[in-house]
Amino acid sequence: MPYVNVKITREGATPEQKAQVIAGVTDVLVKVLGKSPATTFVVLDEVALEDWGIGGVPVEEYRRHA
Amino acid sequence: MPYVNVKITREGATPEQKAQVIAGVTDVLVKVLGKSPATTFVVLDEVALEDWGIGGVPVEEYRRHA
Amino acid sequence: MPYVNVKITREGATPEQKAQVIAGVTDVLVKVLGKSPATTFVVLDEVALEDWGIGGVPVEEYRRHA
Amino acid sequence: MPYVNVKITREGATPEQKAQVIAGVTDVLVKVLGKSPATTFVVLDEVALEDWGIGGVPVEEYRRHA
Amino acid sequence: MPYVNVKITREGATPEQKAQVIAGVTDVLVKVLGKSPATTFVVLDEVALEDWGIGGVPVEEYRRHA
Amino acid sequence: MPYVNVKITREGATPEQKAQVIAGVTDVLVKVLGKSPATTFVVLDEVALEDWGIGGVPVEEYRRHA
Repeated sequence: MPYVNVKITREGATPEQKAQVIAGVTDVLVKVLGKSPATTFVVLDEVALEDWGIGGVPVEEYRRHA
Repeated sequence: MPYVNVKITREGATPEQKAQVIAGVTDVLVKVLGKSPATTFVVLDEVALEDWGIGGVPVEEYRRHA
Repeated sequence: MPYVNVKITREGATPEQKAQVIAGVTDVLVKVLGKSPATTFVVLDEVALEDWGIGGVPVEEYRRHA
Repeated sequence: MPYVNVKITREGATPEQKAQVIAGVTDVLVKVLGKSPATTFVVLDEVALEDWGIGGVPVEEYRRHA
Repeated sequence: MPYVNVKITREGATPEQKAQVIAGVTDVLVKVLGKSPATTFVVLDEVALEDWGIGGVPVEEYRRHA
Repeated sequence: MPYVNVKITREGATPEQKAQVIAGVTDVLVKVLGKSPATTFVVLDEVALEDWGIGGVPVEEYRRHA
């Protein structure tokens, strides 16, 4: 009965890629923990770059210095 | 002092329905647990269909097979 | 297909009260939004008083001044 | 290795303010707990007013009565 | 720079299984979206059975009727 | 009306440090965004090391190789 929330930066993930993430994450829970796919939720959140901080700065600034 | 997060698929919930969800959920916490409404937050998230997976596939595909 | 997370301070909620919260919140989503109970998850988190802040201080200190 | 999620009502926070929140919150974790900024994520969510409830009603109605 | 939160019912997952979930979920994000493992967090939450509701009842009651 | 969730690895944060995190994070939201402390929640979660993954492995293994 798992619930999975995946947060990624919004950078053009396609519906096909999202479907692959949903399938892949569900598959991990089925294979490792024996969970049922029918009661496994996977919810994706795309987060704008200005809303994601790392290293004390927004992602875009972080990448310019990385 | 409860915090409640309600995630639903984005399928046209109206502001009136959202207000009813906020009222109803708050009421449950007041009646069952004696919580104060003044310090009860209810935050709603509407999630695009392509971002919600169940059964290892996005919701729309899941419904076609259900 | 809703997912609901309810966070409350840990202050002795009984299994019966938790079951009532689960039932009540699910009922709100069924009645207001027509959701199916079978695909409605309600996950409760009890949070220690020292881990919940309001007004810039932990809950217990907040209550002493309220 | 902290992960921080900050939810605020959507009321015109600028990218500069968001960057200040990211910097300030990260700084608190570095100074108080000795965390490394490089592995500190801060994710901001702006929530529409109709999606945030307090006192059993949406924020805008709450403010009219406050 | 993904952040993944996996909530499962507390039913005896071992540290080895948890490590496999972490590895598997990270691998999906690397392969499907090209994310870097070094900035991918996976946080697991085990939830007591009495704190997880489905079908309007706690999990254990749900299973007795399923 | 902010809600902040701070997840950190469980490594002996004291109640005093937690109170400082609550105070510091609240202060950032007050100063940068003009939020009211009275309606600012800060909820801390301490996560066991085996439940936090980075780089595709649990934190402890990650640190041995870092």
